[in-house]
Amino acid sequence: MTESFSTLRINPDRMLDTFNQLALIGTTGDGGVNRTTFSEAHLAARKWFREQIKSSGFEFKTDGAGNHSAVLTCGRSNVQTLLIGSHLDSVPKGGRFDGALGVVAAFEVLRTVKENGISLKLNLEAMDFTDEEGTHLSLFGSSALAGHLHPDDLKNPYSGRENFAAGLARAGLTEEGLLQAKRSKESIAGYLELHIEQGKRLERAGINIGVVSAIVGYGSYRMSYLGRADHAGSTTMEDRLDAGQGVAAFILEVRETVMRDFPNCVANVGKLEFVPGASNIVPARADFLLEFRSPDANQLSQLDLTLTELAEQKAKQFGLQLKAEPLGKHLPNLMSSEIQNAFQKSCHDLGLSSTVLASGAIHDAQSLVDICPIGMIFIPSVDGASHAPREFTRWEDCVNGANVLLQTVLRLAAE
Amino acid sequence: MTESFSTLRINPDRMLDTFNQLALIGTTGDGGVNRTTFSEAHLAARKWFREQIKSSGFEFKTDGAGNHSAVLTCGRSNVQTLLIGSHLDSVPKGGRFDGALGVVAAFEVLRTVKENGISLKLNLEAMDFTDEEGTHLSLFGSSALAGHLHPDDLKNPYSGRENFAAGLARAGLTEEGLLQAKRSKESIAGYLELHIEQGKRLERAGINIGVVSAIVGYGSYRMSYLGRADHAGSTTMEDRLDAGQGVAAFILEVRETVMRDFPNCVANVGKLEFVPGASNIVPARADFLLEFRSPDANQLSQLDLTLTELAEQKAKQFGLQLKAEPLGKHLPNLMSSEIQNAFQKSCHDLGLSSTVLASGAIHDAQSLVDICPIGMIFIPSVDGASHAPREFTRWEDCVNGANVLLQTVLRLAAE
Repeated sequence: MTESFSTLRINPDRMLDTFNQLALIGTTGDGGVNRTTFSEAHLAARKWFREQIKSSGFEFKTDGAGNHSAVLTCGRSNVQTLLIGSHLDSVPKGGRFDGALGVVAAFEVLRTVKENGISLKLNLEAMDFTDEEGTHLSLFGSSALAGHLHPDDLKNPYSGRENFAAGLARAGLTEEGLLQAKRSKESIAGYLELHIEQGKRLERAGINIGVVSAIVGYGSYRMSYLGRADHAGSTTMEDRLDAGQGVAAFILEVRETVMRDFPNCVANVGKLEFVPGASNIVPARADFLLEFRSPDANQLSQLDLTLTELAEQKAKQFGLQLKAEPLGKHLPNLMSSEIQNAFQKSCHDLGLSSTVLASGAIHDAQSLVDICPIGMIFIPSVDGASHAPREFTRWEDCVNGANVLLQTVLRLAAE
Repeated sequence: MTESFSTLRINPDRMLDTFNQLALIGTTGDGGVNRTTFSEAHLAARKWFREQIKSSGFEFKTDGAGNHSAVLTCGRSNVQTLLIGSHLDSVPKGGRFDGALGVVAAFEVLRTVKENGISLKLNLEAMDFTDEEGTHLSLFGSSALAGHLHPDDLKNPYSGRENFAAGLARAGLTEEGLLQAKRSKESIAGYLELHIEQGKRLERAGINIGVVSAIVGYGSYRMSYLGRADHAGSTTMEDRLDAGQGVAAFILEVRETVMRDFPNCVANVGKLEFVPGASNIVPARADFLLEFRSPDANQLSQLDLTLTELAEQKAKQFGLQLKAEPLGKHLPNLMSSEIQNAFQKSCHDLGLSSTVLASGAIHDAQSLVDICPIGMIFIPSVDGASHAPREFTRWEDCVNGANVLLQTVLRLAAE
């Protein structure tokens, strides 16, 4: 990379102006946005992005999955494309940074490269992937682009078949189109994404940039403890088979076990309900969801084994039966070490501190891991807030992240 | 009591025939019945009872609360009435013994007394009290008869105002009528009830009859632990304010505390739900119901204090906030010691073993405690089952209970 590239910086004011325009689309009025996939607000944000792309003189590209992008071609034929981006959809009543900042930063990188007339050896493309948050199907835009979407995946969307079909129609998309959005492995040079951390590690350590090593793998189970519904007045404590006792002991010990034996991992019992659920009936059943994550495949298996054994052990301890149905398992996705190195060099040259960390959340990058090298950076989230209107990242940190993204794109794509 | 009275026994075959007729009304086909108050099946059972009363030559009596009874007058004027009975309504998918057996046994006692031409100093009345189980308003028939029903009690029935009004209309009752069902204190000599134990104490001890000393008092709270909804993938275990941890620790320690320090008491967390209730979100809130019971008023207060302090302590331990709203408190109701003695003498004379125990469940008797002496006996429940189709009591035990009831009625009411 020549010296001139290393002094190049994105335009913070232009990026802020763009970011703020976007944050008004579907605003909840308290700093958050409500842009679930194919909602009116989401469609408005997509329209706004198309207009931004065209008015800034980029080629607008879309596909059967509704992925949108701004394309900056290098002018050569038969070259690969480096994808940079994130997503414009949000969770219900989500924050204005999650996803949106990554799209705005990618777009700002393209504008900076274009206006400086940088000579490239790769095409650049600033992406908005459809439905990262899974209003309908988690990561479906990026999965479709990677060719991983299967007709069976469309049969049981989170939103229900009817809402999914109506959403596709509103966006002018079809199921046939989704399954034809695949791009060839040969056409993609890599994928880079800037995202807020959604945790407190960077903020607490006072570090500017997190270079992501992996997206953690996860496993999840639908579990039930089965006891017996007795009258809670006339049945002595000794005579009960109380499903609530089993799940309570399990919840406490899951936390202790993970903190003691799996320090890089997390686990959560996020949903729990007692059946029949009356104040005067001993819980006959406790239905709950267990989820756990690890950045390492072997550790994930070990954690899986440990927690399912623990669940069995608590069933025995309280005379209960355990039902456990695996819901999903996803191995950790490793980021390209070459891209990690490039990010770290960019941080160093920009005078920014960096650390390597795993992403606990899923991201579009993992959809692409089989077709190209992937890389991500995180910037600090104030108080670790995420998926809520109080989600916030200082603008200085956003600018730092965008400059790391710019410098790394130049390292990989400039002549 | 003359020797001739002490050899009197109820007619087991007639009582079984009557019991079996009743068990078919609203049968669930698996031994249970579905006779929630004012359902078609419940109204059919009420009609059947009216016909039984009339065809057996008793006076049929009813009141504004829909309480039904068979009256056997002693022929004197200005004498008090000894009430005996229970209820024909059931919980949804309940058992065929709970309530029904007490009505059938009371009715059999009246038939036995009548056919033997026993001379009485009190009137006898075999009662079916309306809605003991609280489809609409728990114990409302007996409360109305005791004059405890207040217009405010009618404003918020468990079933909702609309269902309550429709139910009353189906039964030919009115709210005005409910409030006018009061009987004078002077007119009632006492109330006796036979009921299944709904627990395992008698069965396990191999004892025929439980003479009830008190109906336990209870307290209940609607409680919530408030934490923070964080992303369960990207938030480390240390950084969470997990409402689920607080309630899990509380549930375990409630049980340990009651078993260790309050051996005659019980407590239950019967309803629990995590909010927002997603597998990948740390529970921000755990909403639950706590209920506890004691046969002793001082102990009930001590238990209340201990458990609410424990709830606070668990909130502090896990960095959560506790919200606690008292839902209800009811002091224990003591049975008449004179009636307890009479029951015990009857057991002794019949060669039946007996023990004294408290009732963990509520019963119509407690409504009447202010207007007359009350007494109850329990008979064994196989496996302690209750409020379920598998609820079962051996017929021999039912006959024993009915004979204790008969002998005790004769002790109190025969000349």
